[in-house]
Amino acid sequence: AVLHVVDRFDDGSLCLVVLQLCLQCSPAVAMLDRVPSALGVPPLGLVALRLSRGIHGRGDQTNHAAGNRVPCRFPFSRVSKQDLAFFENLLPGRTIVDPDVLMTHNVDWMKSVRGSSELLLRPQTTEEVSKILKYCCERRLAVNPQGGNTGLVGGSVPVYDEIILSTSLMNQILSFDQVSGIITCQAGCVLENLSNYLEERDFIMPLDLGAKGSCQIGGNVATNAGGLRLLRYGSLRGTVLGLEVVLASGKILNFLTALRKDNTGYDLKQLFIGSEGTLGIITAVSILCPRRPRAVNVAFLGCSSYKKLLETFQCCRGMLGEILSAFEFLDSACMKLLEKHLKLINPIAENSFYIVIETAGSNADHDKEKLHNFLEAVMASFLVTDGTVATEDAKIKALWSIRERVTEALTHDGYTYKYDISLPLEKIYQLVEDMREYLGDKAKNVVGYGHVGDGNLHLNITSHSKDQALQEAIEPYVYEWTARYRGSISAEHGLGLKKRNYIHFSKHPEAVALMKDIKHMLDPHRILNPYKTLPDQG
Amino acid sequence: AVLHVVDRFDDGSLCLVVLQLCLQCSPAVAMLDRVPSALGVPPLGLVALRLSRGIHGRGDQTNHAAGNRVPCRFPFSRVSKQDLAFFENLLPGRTIVDPDVLMTHNVDWMKSVRGSSELLLRPQTTEEVSKILKYCCERRLAVNPQGGNTGLVGGSVPVYDEIILSTSLMNQILSFDQVSGIITCQAGCVLENLSNYLEERDFIMPLDLGAKGSCQIGGNVATNAGGLRLLRYGSLRGTVLGLEVVLASGKILNFLTALRKDNTGYDLKQLFIGSEGTLGIITAVSILCPRRPRAVNVAFLGCSSYKKLLETFQCCRGMLGEILSAFEFLDSACMKLLEKHLKLINPIAENSFYIVIETAGSNADHDKEKLHNFLEAVMASFLVTDGTVATEDAKIKALWSIRERVTEALTHDGYTYKYDISLPLEKIYQLVEDMREYLGDKAKNVVGYGHVGDGNLHLNITSHSKDQALQEAIEPYVYEWTARYRGSISAEHGLGLKKRNYIHFSKHPEAVALMKDIKHMLDPHRILNPYKTLPDQG
Repeated sequence: AVLHVVDRFDDGSLCLVVLQLCLQCSPAVAMLDRVPSALGVPPLGLVALRLSRGIHGRGDQTNHAAGNRVPCRFPFSRVSKQDLAFFENLLPGRTIVDPDVLMTHNVDWMKSVRGSSELLLRPQTTEEVSKILKYCCERRLAVNPQGGNTGLVGGSVPVYDEIILSTSLMNQILSFDQVSGIITCQAGCVLENLSNYLEERDFIMPLDLGAKGSCQIGGNVATNAGGLRLLRYGSLRGTVLGLEVVLASGKILNFLTALRKDNTGYDLKQLFIGSEGTLGIITAVSILCPRRPRAVNVAFLGCSSYKKLLETFQCCRGMLGEILSAFEFLDSACMKLLEKHLKLINPIAENSFYIVIETAGSNADHDKEKLHNFLEAVMASFLVTDGTVATEDAKIKALWSIRERVTEALTHDGYTYKYDISLPLEKIYQLVEDMREYLGDKAKNVVGYGHVGDGNLHLNITSHSKDQALQEAIEPYVYEWTARYRGSISAEHGLGLKKRNYIHFSKHPEAVALMKDIKHMLDPHRILNPYKTLPDQG
Repeated sequence: AVLHVVDRFDDGSLCLVVLQLCLQCSPAVAMLDRVPSALGVPPLGLVALRLSRGIHGRGDQTNHAAGNRVPCRFPFSRVSKQDLAFFENLLPGRTIVDPDVLMTHNVDWMKSVRGSSELLLRPQTTEEVSKILKYCCERRLAVNPQGGNTGLVGGSVPVYDEIILSTSLMNQILSFDQVSGIITCQAGCVLENLSNYLEERDFIMPLDLGAKGSCQIGGNVATNAGGLRLLRYGSLRGTVLGLEVVLASGKILNFLTALRKDNTGYDLKQLFIGSEGTLGIITAVSILCPRRPRAVNVAFLGCSSYKKLLETFQCCRGMLGEILSAFEFLDSACMKLLEKHLKLINPIAENSFYIVIETAGSNADHDKEKLHNFLEAVMASFLVTDGTVATEDAKIKALWSIRERVTEALTHDGYTYKYDISLPLEKIYQLVEDMREYLGDKAKNVVGYGHVGDGNLHLNITSHSKDQALQEAIEPYVYEWTARYRGSISAEHGLGLKKRNYIHFSKHPEAVALMKDIKHMLDPHRILNPYKTLPDQG
């Protein structure tokens, strides 16, 4: 095994690539890890040991299948000069081999996963995508579809030398119907551009994400992105009305209808929503968009216990009803990190829990009155101990930023282990408390925040530096805990590369077997986004 | 061929069963048709001619595949004494062979399709369903899953001698979470029972159908039922959170989670929503339910043109926004039939179009004010010429009944050809006008009504009696028209037996081929609800 230090990450840790021989796969295998620079480059012997234990040892299939580890490269072809000539002829000027350009496409935005692709293709049309895939399928070349590359589970970057197919140049809005509110566009449209386009026309997108400035609608659909508006407008499974998809064979499936109702046969587009590019490449989307609300209010409240927070939520659903558009929470541990690392000021008295409630409606006076009545009720019954309300844009943004900047505060607190869990509402915070007790001094901080309204907890655990012992204490404990209460180990982030082998904690073996059958049916040569979503075994 | 008059329908027409020999299928084939009693029983020669032309002629594959016609019986086994003994042992007292009981399960509620099953099974548990299917799969016995048997496309009754598997005794509510509003229940729960259960707890079901007194939630999900609340709460694809399904092999797939978000792998439950029992039998469902609205208002309005009706809809979406829960319409031809056949009184001045608008919200005063402002705006701009509003239950029901009783009025007008079409909003009524002009004197009445808010038209054409020439004038014209504007030839009713061969008007051949691949993967022996949903050919 030969060890190379390839890059230095923002936080100073090193990116290591190990070139080695493996009996199971092609000669050159790239493996990535993060090592704090303080530790320096580990001795070769240690690397060799980890390889034989963890990844490529034939005799140790359990470790081979373990979570974040990368499986052996599948026996795909490698890009030849003839292949390059074919692509250059098909996509003149859009067939990229420049290593500097490729660098940014090979690494995810968290810089936690890195591939070694040497070819980036930038099609502009569905027909070009079809021709690319038809060729790659015949030549057994693996393809990594890539949108805005903002995913959190390593699903959007190559693992080895897969060809990167970027949808960035497929950024045309195809149509918008002002009466029905249905927009049809190419997959590479950036979410924020779509939002701006719609807001000018008095509509909004039914989803909103922190990554909206770079994420693309095709990637949003391929990962069934959730976000901040799900509580109000529902998931993409309901709002996406039509898709155009190119299969691994190059065949184009056109389900790009702009109809709210269509019960003619099986709803095949659902297969591709949330399949993370492993079943087909989404090239165009039609989505039902809600009207832009005329009035928006935000309330920031404090609760002394999670029980009271849940009672507040129930009261809120009843009294704010149809105008409720978000119900988010963070715990006091999050607030302390915001104060410490970002110098944010808590706008209300200190509490165990903080709630962000947003209302969106068509009549400002009505909404204000509803919110006022609700606040009176929860204060009078001592569910909420303190609170503040914003109706102006600047103050709304300031209150939202407390919730939205938790992630940023965590990055300043050390190495962060991130978990995105769905649980029955009453169990959500119990997981945080259990983890805190279970980990004791092993962890620096254990914090919880997220989308209460959707039953979605973001559990984050920090340590001074990357800590294998801590990770082994957390996993699979956190997944077992989630499975015990029939939760989901990935509420909205997907499985990608990082979580593919944990699928069994949320899905029965029969279901996973059926997923593999579907994958085999649609992509028998496994060329589409290999090593992602489905587990290595079982 | 031997001809039998088997039954007389409510409207006096006859049900004919033809027993005949066919080279392609098993000896005894039952075929059903409706013949107006005035015509009497057609001579045998005519029947023989129709058989050779339309159904069993090897040389005429086009007619063989034509719309409503029944394909040859697949080579399934027939229920033997040993089979009966097995079922009686598995389901003592719930293995029904009584012809009187079977009669009602063999015929759909429109009495338009009739099977000849001799065995009805009434399982109570998922395990029983699993054992039934495992046995049937091994024995190659065909199975017809049946819920409330309220479908409109012949999907819920056997075509030949398929064993009827009724979910009626699977009627237990398994859990309800008051905080999240998620109900989990067996598939055989009647929709109205679920609604009543929830309303007592201050929640409602996210769907409401005219057939709610008998339809079952399993059937609703299997057919992806739409109904009156879809505009507000979205389709079942968003509100159904979990399913338990038994595959043709007897394998149980448990996706019965009660989570709003779960992105661990492909969302397989979507395959079974809307698959009309052809891919698996749904045995349990979990659904996200909205809070019960505190205030409901209904407005009944008149418009002079469809253009003004659409403008009213746009204004309504803006001004009623989040409280709008239904926007339905009927044309003046519908109103005339209501007045003539049901003696209903039009509560407003005569108009070309009538609109039913429902609001549902959490604050009665706010909703009244919003509705008032909206009505003032549409009256002032002459979009609406007359209208009346109801806030009391009795008057609300009276106004709704004008819209809901159109179907009933049509049955009094003669034989009715029913079409359930999705189209872009601006095209909806053009289809009705085009049909009227195109059919001229051939039709008695051509009327349009439906769910404007969902882009869903119910086009109905009446004639004095069943009229083959009229039907041939309508079809495939109506489907070609719909396909030209990329509409759906079945917005909410599904394909079932009656419309299976028209799928190509709304779905591309590649999509249909993929549906067949999925059917083959999940039910290789085609035992589940055969002859339904997928086309005979292509």
